[in-house]
Amino acid sequence: MMHKVVIIGSGNVAQHLIEAFQIEEQNKEIELIQVYTRQKSTLSHLLSWNQITDDFNSLAEADVYIICVADDAIEEVSAKLPFKNRLVVHTSGSIPLTAIHEDNRKGVFYPLQTFTKNKKVDFSKIPICLESENAPDYHILLKIAQSISKKVYAINSEQRRALHVAAVFANNFTNHLFQISQEICQDNQIPFEILKPLIFETVQKLEILTPQEAQTGPAKRNDQKTIEAHETFLAHKKYLNIYKILTQSIQENVKKL
Amino acid sequence: MMHKVVIIGSGNVAQHLIEAFQIEEQNKEIELIQVYTRQKSTLSHLLSWNQITDDFNSLAEADVYIICVADDAIEEVSAKLPFKNRLVVHTSGSIPLTAIHEDNRKGVFYPLQTFTKNKKVDFSKIPICLESENAPDYHILLKIAQSISKKVYAINSEQRRALHVAAVFANNFTNHLFQISQEICQDNQIPFEILKPLIFETVQKLEILTPQEAQTGPAKRNDQKTIEAHETFLAHKKYLNIYKILTQSIQENVKKL
Repeated sequence: MMHKVVIIGSGNVAQHLIEAFQIEEQNKEIELIQVYTRQKSTLSHLLSWNQITDDFNSLAEADVYIICVADDAIEEVSAKLPFKNRLVVHTSGSIPLTAIHEDNRKGVFYPLQTFTKNKKVDFSKIPICLESENAPDYHILLKIAQSISKKVYAINSEQRRALHVAAVFANNFTNHLFQISQEICQDNQIPFEILKPLIFETVQKLEILTPQEAQTGPAKRNDQKTIEAHETFLAHKKYLNIYKILTQSIQENVKKL
Repeated sequence: MMHKVVIIGSGNVAQHLIEAFQIEEQNKEIELIQVYTRQKSTLSHLLSWNQITDDFNSLAEADVYIICVADDAIEEVSAKLPFKNRLVVHTSGSIPLTAIHEDNRKGVFYPLQTFTKNKKVDFSKIPICLESENAPDYHILLKIAQSISKKVYAINSEQRRALHVAAVFANNFTNHLFQISQEICQDNQIPFEILKPLIFETVQKLEILTPQEAQTGPAKRNDQKTIEAHETFLAHKKYLNIYKILTQSIQENVKKL
């Protein structure tokens, strides 16, 4: 059975999803029939004009409506939909299922990835986290998710909230640490390139070791002399506090072992 | 001209260096002639018995002696060497050139990578940071470093100190954030696998964007509602403080722009 999909939104996630569905349309199981956006021109490079609408009242009938808008607009957009009892899902990691308006059947279709404009992603490797109010709807979401990704997980709203916090640590905060290390390099006329093989190896290790097993460095060794030298180096710099707190946290983990 | 190398030490760095030199020996420019270790058996899987010594007085004559021992043993080991005016280097990121004893010509041969026992590394991609007291010695070190790596940099002791701090942020602290995210997953019955594609993409982005450009997430967007929800989720948990301080640091960076 062919599933008809409508996407609501035109941002980063919407555009990457549109492209993923377009690739998959060849196998005739999923059809992206329409996309809603406030400004039709924002999507004209991806879709033909008659596939785009800027009017909620012109939304086509579909098996699922995927809302890809900013977190704080999900509730409002889902309340504006001019139909009842259809399957409506959002794509946010931090918003509960219940944000979808009561008039429709609720679900979540959360692709866990960091999307960058103009950087292609291989959607088949992106985990998609699914949740639905009703079991039959889960099967529809599963079919659609599996058509574009090999990694599909059932994740409820409470788990998704935890996962989103975990993702902030693994992605946003990690990237910020890269920025700090780049600034330290820059301040000392060192090319940041020198650190990239180390960064790649840090991540590669996760293929064979747990982060606990992979931990190294002065905090792990409790090498107080090096820690003090680093703190002296960072004295009066804004990142000293981050150095101290992460060092202490690693040391506390070691003690627990 | 063939350069003769002696390695002093038998730990992780020593063993990875031994293997790297053994691969390169075929081109006849560098010869690893001997390795010193306190317990000869620790290296018997890598070297023939007559290439190993446990006696400083039996050290062979070489163009360079590479000390690969724990940071706080470098000074002592370099003082024990029973010869003068030879080129002696250490491999540490956090110890100055001057830790090498006055009797010999000082240098540093610092491979910037995280070494894991039993995990092979491709040494040709590991940056090697060189420093020497005298220009002619730099040329010897350059030749040796280039025989095993394509990435060789001149880094003085002050820069190396900065680089080592930067590496702690980029590697040790990053890995600790991975561990925190894994713990959050574990506590909520979520497989850590879900986060790995995100982690790989975080690092892949560094190929085309600076960390500053790649930064995303609630702190970057100043999405106070999500930040508060995350802080509520982490309330009474040991990682709340880390969340707050890294969020604040990202927000301060955004303000500067």
